[in-house]
Amino acid sequence: MGMPMELNTMIVTKGNEVREEENRFVLQKDGYRLYPIDIPIAVFKTKDSEQSGTALIKKVEWQQGKTTITYTLVSLKSTN
Amino acid sequence: MGMPMELNTMIVTKGNEVREEENRFVLQKDGYRLYPIDIPIAVFKTKDSEQSGTALIKKVEWQQGKTTITYTLVSLKSTN
Amino acid sequence: MGMPMELNTMIVTKGNEVREEENRFVLQKDGYRLYPIDIPIAVFKTKDSEQSGTALIKKVEWQQGKTTITYTLVSLKSTN
Amino acid sequence: MGMPMELNTMIVTKGNEVREEENRFVLQKDGYRLYPIDIPIAVFKTKDSEQSGTALIKKVEWQQGKTTITYTLVSLKSTN
Repeated sequence: MGMPMELNTMIVTKGNEVREEENRFVLQKDGYRLYPIDIPIAVFKTKDSEQSGTALIKKVEWQQGKTTITYTLVSLKSTN
Repeated sequence: MGMPMELNTMIVTKGNEVREEENRFVLQKDGYRLYPIDIPIAVFKTKDSEQSGTALIKKVEWQQGKTTITYTLVSLKSTN
Repeated sequence: MGMPMELNTMIVTKGNEVREEENRFVLQKDGYRLYPIDIPIAVFKTKDSEQSGTALIKKVEWQQGKTTITYTLVSLKSTN
Repeated sequence: MGMPMELNTMIVTKGNEVREEENRFVLQKDGYRLYPIDIPIAVFKTKDSEQSGTALIKKVEWQQGKTTITYTLVSLKSTN
């Protein structure tokens, strides 16, 4: 009877992010996920990879069992 | 450093809901608010009024310090 | 990598509540569950039964995959 | 009518942690705060200081407007 959700403290893109504009991306994930908004959050490509950057989430949308976040990359970690 | 939010267990419209379609409404509230999705939730006009109906929230959106919910009224309490 | 939790808007006891004192009860549930504290919340014996009363949750504890709530019954619905 | 809370993605001790045992600490914070349990979380002395370590939160308790967490330090960053 409750509503299942997941508390997330990082963004794991799995390469599914879609670039909307320069450094703004949209990412859809399964399930209802709680992310911090407007707070720096680490970005990873996979949960086992090195951190690829830091983002600010600007929008979170919950609908039909999916979570869609819009985030701005504020720093990138080069892996050279 | 944390993200302030509010856990809500009912919808209080204060008459600010906008009808989108027959029994579907959109309501914007200040702050980031956590509402249960797809679970029956009581609707009130003000927090001190009698319950006016029951709704299912179909969409929750967080952006720029506002929460926008889209809900479907599934029952109405007549006050006659 | 996230933390699964469940948003709960009512208490479903399934008869597992333990009376600590007059109208104060302790209930343990599986998983991490988010309940509103200090806000009137409906109490049910099962999720399909009639509401049995209204409670105020005074304490929520998360540990080892369990949620333990302490609540005070503030009203009872007689079913006579 | 909602319940104010705060989503936290790191532990900021402000030196208020109490050592319970070797690497287990208890920290009390004002307000109801949502922390991820059993997931590595960064520890800071102040919100502007360098990260001092990484912890696993083992217990979260909400009561009387306070949040008490019990955490285990799993790594320390020496600042030498």
